[in-house]
Amino acid sequence: MHAPGDVRVEERDDPTIEKPTDAVIRVAAACICGSDLWPYRGEDPIERPIPMGHEYVGVVEQIGDDVSGLSVGDFVVGSFIASDNTCEICRDGYQSHCVDRVPMGRLGSQAERLRVPLADGTLVVVPGEPTDEQIRGLLAASDVLGTGWFAAVAAQAGPGKTVAVVGDGAVGLLGILSSRQLGAERIIAMSRHADRQALARRFGATDIVEERGADGVARIKELTDGLGAHSVIEAVGTQESMMQAIRSTRAGGHVGYVGVSHDVELPGAELFGSGVHLHGGPAPVRQYLPELIDLIMSGAIDPGAVFDLTLPLDDAAEGYRAMDERRATKVLLTL
Amino acid sequence: MHAPGDVRVEERDDPTIEKPTDAVIRVAAACICGSDLWPYRGEDPIERPIPMGHEYVGVVEQIGDDVSGLSVGDFVVGSFIASDNTCEICRDGYQSHCVDRVPMGRLGSQAERLRVPLADGTLVVVPGEPTDEQIRGLLAASDVLGTGWFAAVAAQAGPGKTVAVVGDGAVGLLGILSSRQLGAERIIAMSRHADRQALARRFGATDIVEERGADGVARIKELTDGLGAHSVIEAVGTQESMMQAIRSTRAGGHVGYVGVSHDVELPGAELFGSGVHLHGGPAPVRQYLPELIDLIMSGAIDPGAVFDLTLPLDDAAEGYRAMDERRATKVLLTL
Repeated sequence: MHAPGDVRVEERDDPTIEKPTDAVIRVAAACICGSDLWPYRGEDPIERPIPMGHEYVGVVEQIGDDVSGLSVGDFVVGSFIASDNTCEICRDGYQSHCVDRVPMGRLGSQAERLRVPLADGTLVVVPGEPTDEQIRGLLAASDVLGTGWFAAVAAQAGPGKTVAVVGDGAVGLLGILSSRQLGAERIIAMSRHADRQALARRFGATDIVEERGADGVARIKELTDGLGAHSVIEAVGTQESMMQAIRSTRAGGHVGYVGVSHDVELPGAELFGSGVHLHGGPAPVRQYLPELIDLIMSGAIDPGAVFDLTLPLDDAAEGYRAMDERRATKVLLTL
Repeated sequence: MHAPGDVRVEERDDPTIEKPTDAVIRVAAACICGSDLWPYRGEDPIERPIPMGHEYVGVVEQIGDDVSGLSVGDFVVGSFIASDNTCEICRDGYQSHCVDRVPMGRLGSQAERLRVPLADGTLVVVPGEPTDEQIRGLLAASDVLGTGWFAAVAAQAGPGKTVAVVGDGAVGLLGILSSRQLGAERIIAMSRHADRQALARRFGATDIVEERGADGVARIKELTDGLGAHSVIEAVGTQESMMQAIRSTRAGGHVGYVGVSHDVELPGAELFGSGVHLHGGPAPVRQYLPELIDLIMSGAIDPGAVFDLTLPLDDAAEGYRAMDERRATKVLLTL
């Protein structure tokens, strides 16, 4: 990305092993993230041309001397933050906050090859050879599914719970799938787009609320005996969506927020009075990858359905345009 | 309280049963709360003279026709919010957010008699006849201990955990006692007052940090391998104390906040990046009263030690002055 709105597919040098804990993978599929739209729309600064992409699945091509858990030829899934998976924070399941973490964003997975730091701690091997359909699911696990899953866990979605989901992008939709898989009784999707409503229902939504803001909160209350949902997933990251999430949650309930916060300020007195639990941030996808890979490879879940536009990598610029204009929910790039 | 700084002890009509779910109790002891200082200092508005006090223990004198769980003569403990203890929110343990809740603040427990709405759901009977020393403990349970306990639970203080406590008022000090009782391994009190440091140590603090703000956060990090505490109790309610609490907590850790928020705005991006859990608000003291009464009556804990000034009710104005000037941590009013 050279500037807002300016995405170019260019020849670059192949990545190489720089540290003995690195691996280089041949990317099998990549995709465009909702968060890639922040710089695309000029809402995050771009100081120089930046490689893009932080979601990836692929085949290990090279490993550094200190990599012991991977072999050349392994099909692997990673996530958007490389982690050692051995520090105290990782052992507590918060690999996205690893003391040695390396954000993958600027390494650029929208490419033929990718260097992955801390490969032993970051990459998870997929047993067997995934089909094209499974590859789509595994790619979703790399970021949007892992993030939706974390949001559902943070919101404590589970048996007997009513879950509301603010945001009908890929993460929100997969938050619905995750809540369903975690056993939630009722799942309310907040969406006003027919195509996304349909996917929400396919993923497990039991109710749709089209209203937003105060009206949306009022509808959630109506559907929950005036109390609010037990669990609310926030997957947008704006002031309005955060307040909608907090106000839709009953006292003692849980908000799981994973929308990347932009210009959000939470009013302390209202939060205090709400009595909700708040947890979120960058999802520790690594924690969930083994379980998600099992669910995908066994066919228990089909998160790959979230990709509604597939393009060759060469057409990445069109993929960005389609997501920016909301013509596509989530774009998969083939290689 | 007639105006900021103007507290008068006056004759008022005795309260009576107004609803069949009411009880009237003869107050055995009352006290002055840190939150009573907000209007005293002019930071909460006072539109007309207001009865003060929301912490109380006493003996049941009258009960309404629908009260079935209490008898005249019972020694009881209540808390600062009356609750039905039967609604869905109460059953989930959040009685301070009961759908029928009645805040006790304006009923005024700094008095000889007090009307308690929703008496069956609000009051908990103490077995036997408490000693004067036990009465001090039970009075603490009514608000400051119940609040400190909730903060410790919200911060998930427990075995193997390092807890940091921001705020050395009565609630913070009893948050230390609660964390100790819940099994925390290490408890860091943030305090710069020698007398409060001594009480913090008596209640179970293992370390004292005198620094505040960024320096305080740096000290907590130094004491925790650079990671921050697992559990942080926030018991002040200002912007500085909230940020100190959030920044002192490791990723994946828990902040339990019970200081009543005044002009607090939490920056979304920083909160997102922190990866902490945040939970707090008005404590559901009712949930914990049976357990706390047991601990006090059996002598397992001595929260009454938090009262460092005891005055007759007639000298309430002096009690307010002493707390305002920080000459006293917590004032008990005898009747």
